[in-house]
Amino acid sequence: MISLEQVRQQSKIDKMQVAGLIYGSQERAKEIQQFFLDCEKVPEVQTNADFYNWSRKKQFLSKDKQGFSFMKMINNKVDDMEQYTGPMIYSATTNHYGVYLGMVVPAVKILGTDEQIKAWLDDLINIRKAACYAQTELGHGSDIQSLQTTATYDKQREEFIINTPTIQAAKFWPGDLGILANWALVFAQLIVDDKNYGVQSFMVQIRDVETHKPLNGIEVGDIGPKIGYQVKDNGFLKFNNVRIPKFNMLAKYISITPQGNVIKQGDPKISYASMMMMRKLLNTVYPKAAAISLTIALRYSYTRQQFTNDSKIENSIIEYQTQQHKLLPLLANLFAVVLSGNMTSKFVDFNFNEVQNGNFQHMNACHSLLCGTKANYTHFVVNCAEWCRLSCGGHGYAHYSGLPSIYQEHCPNVTLEGENQIMFLQLARYLLKLLKTSQKNPQKIPEQFSLFKKIDQILQFKCDQFQFSNILSLLESSVIHLITQTGMKMMQEIQGGLNPKSAWDYKLGTSLWESANYFIEYYKFVCFQKTILQVTHLQTQVVLTNLLNLFGITILLQNPLTLLENDVVTQQTIKQMKDQYENLLTLIKPEALVLIESFCLADGGLRTTIGRADGKPYEYTYDWALNENSINQMELTSVVNQLKNCRPKL
Amino acid sequence: MISLEQVRQQSKIDKMQVAGLIYGSQERAKEIQQFFLDCEKVPEVQTNADFYNWSRKKQFLSKDKQGFSFMKMINNKVDDMEQYTGPMIYSATTNHYGVYLGMVVPAVKILGTDEQIKAWLDDLINIRKAACYAQTELGHGSDIQSLQTTATYDKQREEFIINTPTIQAAKFWPGDLGILANWALVFAQLIVDDKNYGVQSFMVQIRDVETHKPLNGIEVGDIGPKIGYQVKDNGFLKFNNVRIPKFNMLAKYISITPQGNVIKQGDPKISYASMMMMRKLLNTVYPKAAAISLTIALRYSYTRQQFTNDSKIENSIIEYQTQQHKLLPLLANLFAVVLSGNMTSKFVDFNFNEVQNGNFQHMNACHSLLCGTKANYTHFVVNCAEWCRLSCGGHGYAHYSGLPSIYQEHCPNVTLEGENQIMFLQLARYLLKLLKTSQKNPQKIPEQFSLFKKIDQILQFKCDQFQFSNILSLLESSVIHLITQTGMKMMQEIQGGLNPKSAWDYKLGTSLWESANYFIEYYKFVCFQKTILQVTHLQTQVVLTNLLNLFGITILLQNPLTLLENDVVTQQTIKQMKDQYENLLTLIKPEALVLIESFCLADGGLRTTIGRADGKPYEYTYDWALNENSINQMELTSVVNQLKNCRPKL
Repeated sequence: MISLEQVRQQSKIDKMQVAGLIYGSQERAKEIQQFFLDCEKVPEVQTNADFYNWSRKKQFLSKDKQGFSFMKMINNKVDDMEQYTGPMIYSATTNHYGVYLGMVVPAVKILGTDEQIKAWLDDLINIRKAACYAQTELGHGSDIQSLQTTATYDKQREEFIINTPTIQAAKFWPGDLGILANWALVFAQLIVDDKNYGVQSFMVQIRDVETHKPLNGIEVGDIGPKIGYQVKDNGFLKFNNVRIPKFNMLAKYISITPQGNVIKQGDPKISYASMMMMRKLLNTVYPKAAAISLTIALRYSYTRQQFTNDSKIENSIIEYQTQQHKLLPLLANLFAVVLSGNMTSKFVDFNFNEVQNGNFQHMNACHSLLCGTKANYTHFVVNCAEWCRLSCGGHGYAHYSGLPSIYQEHCPNVTLEGENQIMFLQLARYLLKLLKTSQKNPQKIPEQFSLFKKIDQILQFKCDQFQFSNILSLLESSVIHLITQTGMKMMQEIQGGLNPKSAWDYKLGTSLWESANYFIEYYKFVCFQKTILQVTHLQTQVVLTNLLNLFGITILLQNPLTLLENDVVTQQTIKQMKDQYENLLTLIKPEALVLIESFCLADGGLRTTIGRADGKPYEYTYDWALNENSINQMELTSVVNQLKNCRPKL
Repeated sequence: MISLEQVRQQSKIDKMQVAGLIYGSQERAKEIQQFFLDCEKVPEVQTNADFYNWSRKKQFLSKDKQGFSFMKMINNKVDDMEQYTGPMIYSATTNHYGVYLGMVVPAVKILGTDEQIKAWLDDLINIRKAACYAQTELGHGSDIQSLQTTATYDKQREEFIINTPTIQAAKFWPGDLGILANWALVFAQLIVDDKNYGVQSFMVQIRDVETHKPLNGIEVGDIGPKIGYQVKDNGFLKFNNVRIPKFNMLAKYISITPQGNVIKQGDPKISYASMMMMRKLLNTVYPKAAAISLTIALRYSYTRQQFTNDSKIENSIIEYQTQQHKLLPLLANLFAVVLSGNMTSKFVDFNFNEVQNGNFQHMNACHSLLCGTKANYTHFVVNCAEWCRLSCGGHGYAHYSGLPSIYQEHCPNVTLEGENQIMFLQLARYLLKLLKTSQKNPQKIPEQFSLFKKIDQILQFKCDQFQFSNILSLLESSVIHLITQTGMKMMQEIQGGLNPKSAWDYKLGTSLWESANYFIEYYKFVCFQKTILQVTHLQTQVVLTNLLNLFGITILLQNPLTLLENDVVTQQTIKQMKDQYENLLTLIKPEALVLIESFCLADGGLRTTIGRADGKPYEYTYDWALNENSINQMELTSVVNQLKNCRPKL
């Protein structure tokens, strides 16, 4: 059997150059690597091997110090999202007060007046006012404008009355609400003199600061167990005509006079910018957790042996084409996700700066790109965890593999901060708009969407003989054909008598979804390709180019119909792609270990027995079962007697 | 909003006719329906709403009476697998001693001599000898011939010495072993006079019957937490030269004289028959659990409303094409799985009878079919649970939806009793063999594979204009083209210098996998089509035919490349299929509720708040969060103080 160390030694790539691409620079990569090693020495940030045997209560309490320890390790720079990379990858789970620091604090900063910020920020940032982000209701998530909680202005007392008129209107899902929060930033319909002024946000105290008992008129608690997020106290919250001072409506963009005149001021678009920052976090930090799954699955695939080859020696399972087919396209996709995420991140920062200077012209492009990447990336992380688990046979099903928790902790991201399907539809709407722009004002098309500037050229492209250099053109062609077909279908439905909204909802959903997702795959390829131009080490560039090509071909082969339907390619081209796909698997196999180890993950953060740096899956797995598994300390006599007592006579 | 009751009233189908197809007959369907209703009244078989907040220890103990209560409800007919249908669907989880009753008892009956059966069976069946099925080891699962546990015969003492020579050789994963079992049926290499006689099975006592302490030389325990199966004590087991009497080797097909002469006798093929019976269970009972996911997701999709339509009324989310696209093909696939599973089941019974009469001629076909369907069905159940969860937004992520547990409890089936990929390869091997048979002895081709009798005719088939009546021919065409291409690729690789084993392992894996899976999809379609011919009620037949066509088109559109590559269809044909796909979604939508309710599931077995028969997702969800969630009884002051004490000054 070849050892992991031998595989590493036979690699021809410069690992730290690859790490530099992943983390933005080699210096940053080294910092992150050191951070992971430092984490291994801090007891408070570890997840106990026995964690998944525990009750939710015990799990919850075990996390009390983790969040704060991480904050200390990043020198309390909680305002700098880049700092979250290390903690989030290492812990691979949510921390207490994560939503609060990530969403409530920024929202108050952006939507609050100077007086409000002065009044609350210090208490907020020091977790005296521990506030949750109370937006989603039982009956409404994606459709925020239809939230039903009301905030009715009472002129006489200069107060708002916060109320939950129906069961659907109960706040449901906010993180940190169920147990921890004593305040809530509540999103509610503002009603003044029976007129509705839309959804606004209100700071509402919900629990007594000392006793932590709910205040009068408040019903609050945890919503129950979930497939993951055991330690996140997602909560419910009902208001029975709770009064708060007029001061507590966040009032930078909307204010109300004592007499009840509502005044809108400034550009409220900036409120989207704060949501964008949250999605940036989802798009740059969270996807790197997929490297955990792949590190584990790939190491295990080298060390696990099953069935003998024709020399009667047992094969490492990575030798089998089926195993390569499961894992290597995911590895390629991970690089596409991470490298494109890094580029998107820069665009978000650029846009945010522009917005702060009053320039909103990049908002649409930035918003649409974030929607589409969010949907694509979060799905990828979950799907990658799932296939990695499946690639490890029975051991992947065990929590000691470290794989189930990645799946469980990342599932929610598919739904939260914009449900994925809705996100794709938002991008699709923008793409259809660009189709029109391309005819009237092509110069207005943003750089990331520049393929819309050369639609005619793209539509004419044909490819009889496949070469790697064609991949980009083939992806462009797929995107443009898909989106133009969708646009035509839309027109036909409208001409057939449907109004645009009905056509969109009832006839076009799947086409829109497919177009948007394909655009993101194309975008990932472009970013991947641009990024690896920076690589100076020749062998490294060769390997990364193979990986890029594997990614591109995988995407094309997953959905080649559009190309065939439009005579862009022939059946011969497809066959050539398939052959190249199989060749690339063979070429990448020897480098897969070092490629994934360029993420520099530490054993402590992997929480795995089967995917540790030194191999030895069986030794660690047996050791944890024997020594770390509290079920084995259970008093067995009582169990056995209990079972004996209900012994049947069959 | 339309109520579920209104949707039911508007349905045109005869629900009990459909139920009759699902459960084999209308009488049986009524029995099952009654069984589910009876279950609701038996406290011992319920899963507590708070179950997923509990520690594994508490979860484990809570199940002590469930298995026995179910046995009582089926009048202790534990030998009749058909009886498992009700309990398995209702509980949607594993029960104590399930593996033991399902595998050890049959194995002893089949592999034991009359004396052995006489000596053990009564104790086994009454759970005095609670034995687990100790086959899989840490290092070997799929490759049973390479198991490393040894059973060395000691002539002097007429005993076997059972030993675990390496860490990889430790038994790992057997269900009921970790906590419950006091005996084990151990699979080990039989060594006599230094000669290896292959893997045989041995009855070994591992724990004291009274104290339940491990006997000398035994190390045993639970292997730790998993993504699901919280209440299954999958265990580990290590032997340090443990001695057992010579009598304890199951000896119907192999025996040993006191002097150490090994005698093989009878036809050991019959041992496969017992494994087949287990796979039959996996293929006929377990897939019906996917109806739980779809019942929940479909009911929720009718009651959940989000975003207004052009009349400013909120739409039920089932109205959106994207939601139909997620759920309705799964519904169609469920029927294909269940109806083909029923037909396979009859074939397995027929084969088992033949085998008992010494006729082994159907073994290969039966084995191959079970391998392929096992892999296809178990994947379907997990994938269906996953998409149902995603189709329910945030609520799908909560355990109170009932959806996560289906995913968690069915994940293991993908790996156990034959890892899915290995299963597909077994079927592929048989299909390649049939290719040869078709040339030399076409009359020897079994009925289920009869398309291999008309290969030439199939290869000539073309389809320019798509009609529903072409679906079967298109599926046949895909299968035959795929398998012949794979066969040719195999020949090319061998001609290119690879030996057949290497070609198989390193070059053909993905093609073999794809061919085998496509064959099963074709087989499902055939069985589905045959079954609905029985339907006498016209409207019901119309709706089921739509469902059949939706299933067929979905499969064809998932992988149309083979058809295009071989000029079987044109791009025009594909476009027509896509249009028909969208039409079928619209046609099936109004009947989807009653179609899934033909599985007759009871609310108690769904364990859901969002998918109950009377709708009301919000009322139940809020009620459970408020009243059933033990986390909300947690003493909060201590939690809050704990958090206060580590309050940072940021």
